[in-house]
Amino acid sequence: MSIDTHTAPRAPRGLAGLIVADTAIGDVRGQEGFFHYRQYDATQVARHRTFEDAWHLVLRGSLPETQHEVDQWHDTIRAAAHIPAAVRDSLLATMQASSSGAPLADLRTALSALGALTHDRPLWDLAAAQREAAALHVAASVPWLVAACHAIARGEQPRDPRPELGYVGNYLWLVTGQDPRPDQVRALSRYLILTIDHGFNNSTFTARTVASTGADLTACVVAALGSLSGPLHGGAPSRALDALDAIGTIDRAGDWARAQLAAGDRVMGFGHAIYRGLDPRSELLRETAAELGGDTAQLAIAAEQEVVAVLDEAKPGRMLRANVEYYAGVVMDACGLDRVLFTPTFAVSRVVGWTAHILEQAADTKIIRPASRYVGPAAPVPVPPT
Amino acid sequence: MSIDTHTAPRAPRGLAGLIVADTAIGDVRGQEGFFHYRQYDATQVARHRTFEDAWHLVLRGSLPETQHEVDQWHDTIRAAAHIPAAVRDSLLATMQASSSGAPLADLRTALSALGALTHDRPLWDLAAAQREAAALHVAASVPWLVAACHAIARGEQPRDPRPELGYVGNYLWLVTGQDPRPDQVRALSRYLILTIDHGFNNSTFTARTVASTGADLTACVVAALGSLSGPLHGGAPSRALDALDAIGTIDRAGDWARAQLAAGDRVMGFGHAIYRGLDPRSELLRETAAELGGDTAQLAIAAEQEVVAVLDEAKPGRMLRANVEYYAGVVMDACGLDRVLFTPTFAVSRVVGWTAHILEQAADTKIIRPASRYVGPAAPVPVPPT
Repeated sequence: MSIDTHTAPRAPRGLAGLIVADTAIGDVRGQEGFFHYRQYDATQVARHRTFEDAWHLVLRGSLPETQHEVDQWHDTIRAAAHIPAAVRDSLLATMQASSSGAPLADLRTALSALGALTHDRPLWDLAAAQREAAALHVAASVPWLVAACHAIARGEQPRDPRPELGYVGNYLWLVTGQDPRPDQVRALSRYLILTIDHGFNNSTFTARTVASTGADLTACVVAALGSLSGPLHGGAPSRALDALDAIGTIDRAGDWARAQLAAGDRVMGFGHAIYRGLDPRSELLRETAAELGGDTAQLAIAAEQEVVAVLDEAKPGRMLRANVEYYAGVVMDACGLDRVLFTPTFAVSRVVGWTAHILEQAADTKIIRPASRYVGPAAPVPVPPT
Repeated sequence: MSIDTHTAPRAPRGLAGLIVADTAIGDVRGQEGFFHYRQYDATQVARHRTFEDAWHLVLRGSLPETQHEVDQWHDTIRAAAHIPAAVRDSLLATMQASSSGAPLADLRTALSALGALTHDRPLWDLAAAQREAAALHVAASVPWLVAACHAIARGEQPRDPRPELGYVGNYLWLVTGQDPRPDQVRALSRYLILTIDHGFNNSTFTARTVASTGADLTACVVAALGSLSGPLHGGAPSRALDALDAIGTIDRAGDWARAQLAAGDRVMGFGHAIYRGLDPRSELLRETAAELGGDTAQLAIAAEQEVVAVLDEAKPGRMLRANVEYYAGVVMDACGLDRVLFTPTFAVSRVVGWTAHILEQAADTKIIRPASRYVGPAAPVPVPPT
């Protein structure tokens, strides 16, 4: 196959709005302010189910129906999270040697090493059950890897998991060293469920692009993790909280928003590429932040109204509203998470979505390989001698 | 922005033939059996110039013109390859702790650690000169990282660079521990120059997709490296050489090809998605293999004719011809490279292309974020109670 770049079809910039694949995992219906996992409204799943249930739904297509199914699934996740002692020791030594204090980069190294040390094989060499096992293993390893990297960066001893706390409670224990409160577990579960998947965002598309070569699952996840290091994708929750720090008190919210607009800056935490108006994730997270309470949550809720009023006046009709990042930082902060852990915590949930997409993509044998249009000087000209 | 998946445009499967971006780096004109870097035929660059010259061309857009320019550029590359002693020690400890014997996975971990330890920052936080410095540093580090990972996997001491041997000669020294012969340096230079860039192949597109978030350069390169772990992209040269082993002697080449076809297998090393007929890279590499000589090269050249005859008979009009992988393995083998190093060696050159593409992409502020069409059960249905 060879293309004529004068007549070949051309994708919109950034591939925006271009359908690149079919998926049965979920959808974002931006016009309706709604997104779903499989057949269920994601905010309803976040309200009524556990993170483990949501994981089962996204990966396998259904919610567990009986207590027996739930118990079996929890056992499956716990088994998948197990890292053999020898691999664990190698990983800890790797983290120690490569610790940089940048949690996302350190997680990338640790995940890469885990895949290598467990001899993760190309997806196409694996049967369906093996692929799912690899997906579960990689995803279920992320909480401990995040926590261990963070501990080592601070010169602390990584904690051992306490799986009896449940997936989310255990994660909170691992990263804070505190017994998590039930309202924190509930709040963080909601955040994590709401961020498992969200269309063909950049990291998910990256994971699928790499998977289309038949690469090993770790390679796909490490690639996706890389895109979270970009300011446009993974870095917003902590910056939204930084913005709240800058606002400081509620009476300054309007002035702050006007100053941001005057400086030509995007107002951090407001507006979304897909949703016009309300982001359903921020709705539920606002409610969750209010339940958790605390000064930051109160400030955030009050400041939101002020900022929206300024935005509506300055950009009429744009309907810029608080997005998921705005309340994500507030909720994670109230759960006791260090700000540097916000993006790695996003990875704890998004890796469930990535791995579901990787398995879906791996069922297709067609490599993703687009074309480009050459716009440089006319070629060829003779190569001049040295 | 929100899309209606019933009316939204749909990309061809695998994005094949779809123009997703403009580039001034190069082009593949498959119908003409021709590809170029900037304004120069890539095979002519490979015949007449050094790898360092080709790197300058791809990254900066021009060939060095004077000896002074060449000398300065060599100094720049040598400086970029320098890893401070403390970082080097941390990297060696990382490689030691995470060594798996899978060179591509180990390189992925080492590159990730290098980026973390040198505090690689998001591309959008860097000025143009800093971006180029980051690109040069990552790319120029790959030869030593490959060699050090390989040495450690075999329980050997990593060798120190000998930059006076030139970029390609030094790489051969690092991985073989032998003084490279001039014909080997010349042959491997040709291979490396020919594989710097080749359109929007999967790994290059992956690198650009991650770069579009403003991610750090290491994250983009680590992501691209992941796609080389896929059988469809990075693994072919060693498998082509495995095929020559299976053929064994020239009189069995025809039978071997017929058996592959009968088993429904793709005939490894023949045919290419873009080139119909001759792959210009394999033309020059055949000539290069012939110059190097040796039993494997002789077998490969003779077997090619037999296999092509069988393919022409079995698939008339398809014009399946030896592709770059077929002779790549032969050339690397004759240069003394261990078979497990073939794909990492491909990364030594391709990383130059990736980094050029990453810098080009980073100049665009639009994130790559396509859409998908949901094909699962109708949503939403109520979430059943637990």
